Amino acid sequence: MATHIQLHKLPSPFAMHRGSELHEATLAYETWGQLNAAKSNAVLILTGLSADSHAAAHDEHDTPGWWQAMIGPGKAIDTTTWFVICASSLGSCKGSTGPCSPMPGTGEPYRFAFPDLCLEDIANASASLTRSLGIEQLHAVIGPSMGGMTAQALVLENPGYTRHMINIAAAMVSRPFSTAIRSLQREAILKDVNFKNGYYSADNWPTEGMKLARKIGMLSYRSAEEWDERFPRSLRQVPSRPFGIEFPVESYLEHHANKFVHQFDPISYLYLSRAMDWFDAHEHASDDSNPFSGCGLRSAQVIGCRTDLLFPPHQQQELHDTLAAAGIKTRLEIVDSIEGHDAFLVDTATFSPLIRQALDRTADHPGETPA
Amino acid sequence: MATHIQLHKLPSPFAMHRGSELHEATLAYETWGQLNAAKSNAVLILTGLSADSHAAAHDEHDTPGWWQAMIGPGKAIDTTTWFVICASSLGSCKGSTGPCSPMPGTGEPYRFAFPDLCLEDIANASASLTRSLGIEQLHAVIGPSMGGMTAQALVLENPGYTRHMINIAAAMVSRPFSTAIRSLQREAILKDVNFKNGYYSADNWPTEGMKLARKIGMLSYRSAEEWDERFPRSLRQVPSRPFGIEFPVESYLEHHANKFVHQFDPISYLYLSRAMDWFDAHEHASDDSNPFSGCGLRSAQVIGCRTDLLFPPHQQQELHDTLAAAGIKTRLEIVDSIEGHDAFLVDTATFSPLIRQALDRTADHPGETPA
Repeated sequence: MATHIQLHKLPSPFAMHRGSELHEATLAYETWGQLNAAKSNAVLILTGLSADSHAAAHDEHDTPGWWQAMIGPGKAIDTTTWFVICASSLGSCKGSTGPCSPMPGTGEPYRFAFPDLCLEDIANASASLTRSLGIEQLHAVIGPSMGGMTAQALVLENPGYTRHMINIAAAMVSRPFSTAIRSLQREAILKDVNFKNGYYSADNWPTEGMKLARKIGMLSYRSAEEWDERFPRSLRQVPSRPFGIEFPVESYLEHHANKFVHQFDPISYLYLSRAMDWFDAHEHASDDSNPFSGCGLRSAQVIGCRTDLLFPPHQQQELHDTLAAAGIKTRLEIVDSIEGHDAFLVDTATFSPLIRQALDRTADHPGETPA
Repeated sequence: MATHIQLHKLPSPFAMHRGSELHEATLAYETWGQLNAAKSNAVLILTGLSADSHAAAHDEHDTPGWWQAMIGPGKAIDTTTWFVICASSLGSCKGSTGPCSPMPGTGEPYRFAFPDLCLEDIANASASLTRSLGIEQLHAVIGPSMGGMTAQALVLENPGYTRHMINIAAAMVSRPFSTAIRSLQREAILKDVNFKNGYYSADNWPTEGMKLARKIGMLSYRSAEEWDERFPRSLRQVPSRPFGIEFPVESYLEHHANKFVHQFDPISYLYLSRAMDWFDAHEHASDDSNPFSGCGLRSAQVIGCRTDLLFPPHQQQELHDTLAAAGIKTRLEIVDSIEGHDAFLVDTATFSPLIRQALDRTADHPGETPA
């Protein structure tokens, strides 16, 4: 384990949202900046499905992270002000305990013996981590994509624990179109002959299933509009075999699928993907009451993107409206980026000032001036 | 061969758009209504990718067709007025010669020995059929989806042969997003272990690949909006195995995939799917000139649907604008159906009057009064 990555032992047993328990589980996490004496400047970042704890470089470890443009001294999430924490999700394969981790006792991977995983579990494991750091209340949670749903889970499962939320490219619940995309990704993995009900090996990896899953996902990460600009038909190549790669968009998908295929564990992918489909903020309220009533949030910034196919703007509108109806001071911003769901990763020029301003506004609250 | 299906022998050799030849090829077709003495009332229907010649029932064969609501006495395409012809596409597996047909000489299926297939070939084979019926000029060609692209190919390859075109849910060229969806469908088929480079058998059918291909396609046939209405989360079922079917949208996709899997030949699917990606109306013009200049069309009706993900409205706008710039009297109608690309098949209440009126208007042209 690289020195910039730290480990948090979850309480054992760790109670899972759907009823079972995890034993001897750990979270891998990284931090940036300094926790102030009052422990009041903690900003927790919750990740998208395939991201890990390495959101940005550290002084002593300069590999860029997945949100490198956003986190650091002087950046939107300014590490001279905020103490920033990011963990690999529980259930992931990036250092935290997940389905490919060894099971206590046997040492064999959990595979499908891993308990049912919900975003609530990822959220609660993250709160266990931040509590272990002495943080009695988070200044803010910031979550894009799956992290935005997990941020809601955190707020709903831990009332009063979070003062502010920045929720990006997410929704209160997945719509059927988005569930269908993820279902087909899971099917592509499950049906790969090498998947063998989870008993794959490095030598017999479900490569084709993982590649196809990644490519199906990529249909929903950018936008048709962006691809119109990016892939001129004039770049067609002569395929090397019947029905081989010919169109620029096919090369692009193949390139990204090849990069992804060994970077993520197939069963972890299944668990996290399903957790997104299971999440429903409405389930945290009895009957038709507002799930965010009494959650203790002081403010929220909800951000969406016009071209997001996976979580389109009307879903951020719903989250914003529900937060407002719960009496939370909330702002909604729908940006006009053409990068679709991925805009928060790519369109730094738009997202940096938005997130900086959202964080700046949280510091206006009396008694919350950081550092 | 059922008696309502007729066969047309293509000239042998039949020259293909990309340079090779087909020998002893046939088209399976059906007709409705009567060709008038002047042979001036012929309406050719060109089909979507997976449809066959059976567009509607006949008096002596009452199985409903794929466009049953649209074709018949008193219907939008009124068979008391028009002589309607519909063929299974060349390259398809529905009675016309395609990759799974026996190759002359050997009797073995063509498989990948079938020549490169373009929509121009499907169009020219259809024109060969209608010419063989003594039709010197088509009154109109009507094509939805792939048929709309094929209709353009027909008009561009056979100048002066068609008086009017009704072009539905199509485009002059596929955008990268649409190509990506079809590419992933092809990949799902090609990568199925049972596909065996085309040497699959009924006992070892590439079932999973075909199912996944169908499901990927279905992401683009309706709309996220329609699915929001159709699939309430309350209908979730308990899956029978880990990661089995749970969400209503998963049952829906599974049901349709199971219906499709043995109804279409995998290699035929590959050939037709690629033909859609290869089509580019612009390639029929040298440099930047208008491909429809001199095509001889007297009028066109272009129809799109607001919620069509595969061929969105700006693509019908482009076709309409290009036809107009070529001096063709053209109308554009973008309907507001929530059924997406499939609206022409489903939203009869909207499409019937549109198509009826479009055909009615063509009869206003002097000398073209039908029947």
